[in-house]
Amino acid sequence: MKVVFNESHRQHHPRNFLVSGARHDSPEVPGRADALLAAARDAGHDLMAPVRDFGLAPAAAVHTPEYLQFLQNIYPRWRRIEGASDEVIPNVHPNGCGAGYPDSAVGQAGYHMADTACPISEGTWSAALAAADLAVNAAQLVLDGAPAAYALCRPPGHHAFADMAGGFCFLNNSAIAAQFLRRHLEHVAILDVDLHHGNGTQGIFYERADVLTVSLHADPARFYPFFWGHAGERGAGPGLGFNLNLPLPRGSGDEAFLLALEPAFARIRAFAPAALVVALGLDAHEADPLAGLAVTSDGFTQIGRAIGSLGLPSVLVQEGGYLNDALGRNLTNVLGGFEKARGA
Amino acid sequence: MKVVFNESHRQHHPRNFLVSGARHDSPEVPGRADALLAAARDAGHDLMAPVRDFGLAPAAAVHTPEYLQFLQNIYPRWRRIEGASDEVIPNVHPNGCGAGYPDSAVGQAGYHMADTACPISEGTWSAALAAADLAVNAAQLVLDGAPAAYALCRPPGHHAFADMAGGFCFLNNSAIAAQFLRRHLEHVAILDVDLHHGNGTQGIFYERADVLTVSLHADPARFYPFFWGHAGERGAGPGLGFNLNLPLPRGSGDEAFLLALEPAFARIRAFAPAALVVALGLDAHEADPLAGLAVTSDGFTQIGRAIGSLGLPSVLVQEGGYLNDALGRNLTNVLGGFEKARGA
Repeated sequence: MKVVFNESHRQHHPRNFLVSGARHDSPEVPGRADALLAAARDAGHDLMAPVRDFGLAPAAAVHTPEYLQFLQNIYPRWRRIEGASDEVIPNVHPNGCGAGYPDSAVGQAGYHMADTACPISEGTWSAALAAADLAVNAAQLVLDGAPAAYALCRPPGHHAFADMAGGFCFLNNSAIAAQFLRRHLEHVAILDVDLHHGNGTQGIFYERADVLTVSLHADPARFYPFFWGHAGERGAGPGLGFNLNLPLPRGSGDEAFLLALEPAFARIRAFAPAALVVALGLDAHEADPLAGLAVTSDGFTQIGRAIGSLGLPSVLVQEGGYLNDALGRNLTNVLGGFEKARGA
Repeated sequence: MKVVFNESHRQHHPRNFLVSGARHDSPEVPGRADALLAAARDAGHDLMAPVRDFGLAPAAAVHTPEYLQFLQNIYPRWRRIEGASDEVIPNVHPNGCGAGYPDSAVGQAGYHMADTACPISEGTWSAALAAADLAVNAAQLVLDGAPAAYALCRPPGHHAFADMAGGFCFLNNSAIAAQFLRRHLEHVAILDVDLHHGNGTQGIFYERADVLTVSLHADPARFYPFFWGHAGERGAGPGLGFNLNLPLPRGSGDEAFLLALEPAFARIRAFAPAALVVALGLDAHEADPLAGLAVTSDGFTQIGRAIGSLGLPSVLVQEGGYLNDALGRNLTNVLGGFEKARGA
C-alpha cells in the first residue's frame, strides 16, 4: 500500500497532559510515528513523501478562520504573558454558556481548546498542517486511482472540531481528507475505529447528509471524550441519520468489535459512498497504555480484512495508538488484512 | 449595619489556582473573611450569626438539580479515581459543542466547572451552602424591615451559573438572595461592583425581566471572565434590556468608576425595584492583588454613599476582594458611606 509520510511531525512534541487534575507526560510522542514507519517499511509497503503541498485550503474547508488563525499565532502571544507556561494550556472555558468570542490569548485558548491534552508549542502549527497535508496527499492518490493509501499522520486529528482542539488533536486530518474527496465525489463515508469516539469528526459533519460518519469506540460513559459518542447522537437537521455511534463496553475484545462492525458496514453500504476514509486508531489494542478496549493483534488483521471487504477506494488516516510492543505489528496486521481482502 | 456571619467558610480552603497554564496559590483564602470581620467589628457594626437555616431550597431555586448533586457528591467520587489530584480540578470541557450530560466524575467536573479557579475539596460544599445561607439570612432581615444587611460570604458567588462553577465561586450567593427576595417582591435589581464581570449572575437572569442585573467591571477583552461582560450583552427573550454591562478600561480609577455608576443608577431607578442586592466585591481597589482597576479607599466611601443614596432596601453580599492592607478599610468605607447616605 502507498504510505505517505514525512518528518514534519517532529516539530510537535507535547510535554503536558493533565489527567484528573494531575500532570503526566503526554503519550503522543514522535516515537509513535517512528514505530509505525518502521513497521510499514518492514512490511514492504510503498513509502513515499507527499507529492504536493496543498497549503491551507483543505484545512480551511473544514475549520473556521478564527481557529486557524489561533493555531497559527497563539504560541508567541502566549509566551508574552508574564509567568505563562511553556506550552499553551487552557484554564478557562466558556462551556457554551452564551459566550462571546474573546480577544485575549487566555480567553481564546479556553475557547478553542476543549481540554489539557492538546498543549501547543512552537512547532505545533507546522506539524499539524503537515499532518493534514499527508492526509490530503493520500486522498489525492486515491482520487488518482490508487485503491487505497495510508497517511502516517501525527498529531492525530479526530478530536478536533471545526473550531476547537482536544485530545492530542489540532487539525482533523480525517475530516479534511473526506472534505477534499467531496470536491470530486458526491458521497464519502468516514469509519472511525480508534479507541475513542471521533467527536470532532462527528461535530464537523453533524448536520450534513453528504458525509456519513460512523464511529466504534469505548463507551464514553466512563471514557474520553465523555460528552460525545453515545448511541443517541444521530446527526441533526439535514444530517439526521448520517451519524452512527457504536459504543462498546470498556474491555471489549475482538468479538464485540467485529460484531459492531456489522451495523457499521450495513450503514455504509446503504449510503453507497464513492470512497471511504478510515480514521485508523490502533489504541483499541489490549496493550495500549490508554487501556480502553482489548482488541488483539490478530483482531486487527480481521478488522483490516473486514474493512477491505467493503471494496471501497479507501484513505486510511492514522489517528491514536500509543507506544507499546504491539503498535507496529498492529499497523502491519490491519494494512495486511485490508490488502488481502482487496486481493492486492 | 447588620452583618451576618459564621465560621463555616473555613471548611473551604482552595489550594490550586492555574493561571496561564502555571500553578499558583489561590488568593481566595479564609484570611479574607477574618480581615473583613475584624473591620466590621472595629467599625461597630451589628455582628450576628444567621438566625435560621434555610436549607437547600433557596439554592435550588437558582441552580440545577444535577449541579447541586455534583457539588455535594463529587469530592469522594473524584478521590476514588486512581492518581487523581487532591482537589477536583477539571481538565476536559464540552465548550458547548452539542454535548450530552456525562456520567463520569471527570466528565461532570468539566461540564460543571468553567475553569481551574474553583477547585473542590472535602469541605467546599458545606462552606458554599453556608455562604448562600448567610446571603438568604441577610435578605430575610431586609424583608423583615431592616433598611440594609451585609452577608459576609465566602466563597464568593457571582461567577457561578445555574449549572456551573467558576472563578472561586460555587453557589451564586447574590443571585440566591435576589431570587429569595423575589418570593415577596415583584422587582429586584442586582448591582455588581466587583472588579470582575458578574457572569454567573448575568447567565442566571439573562432571559428574565423581573430581576435587573447591572455590572461594572474591568473590560473582559483582556480580563477574566473573558467570554462575558461586554456592553453588547443586553439580555435575551423576555429579559432583553434587563442586563446592563459597564466595562471599564483596565486601570480605571475613582472618577471612571463613579461616572459609570450614573447610567447604572439611571437604569435601576427606571426599573423601580422593591429591593437591591449589591454584589459587593472590593477587588476594584488599587492595591488588590488581582490588579484590574485602581479605585482608592476614599473611592469606596463614595461608591457606598452613591449606592445608599438610591434609598432602596439593600442586601449587600460579599463577593471578591483579596488580601491587601486596605481590604478591611475598604469594607468599612463602603458600608460607612452607604449608612451615611441613608442617614443611619
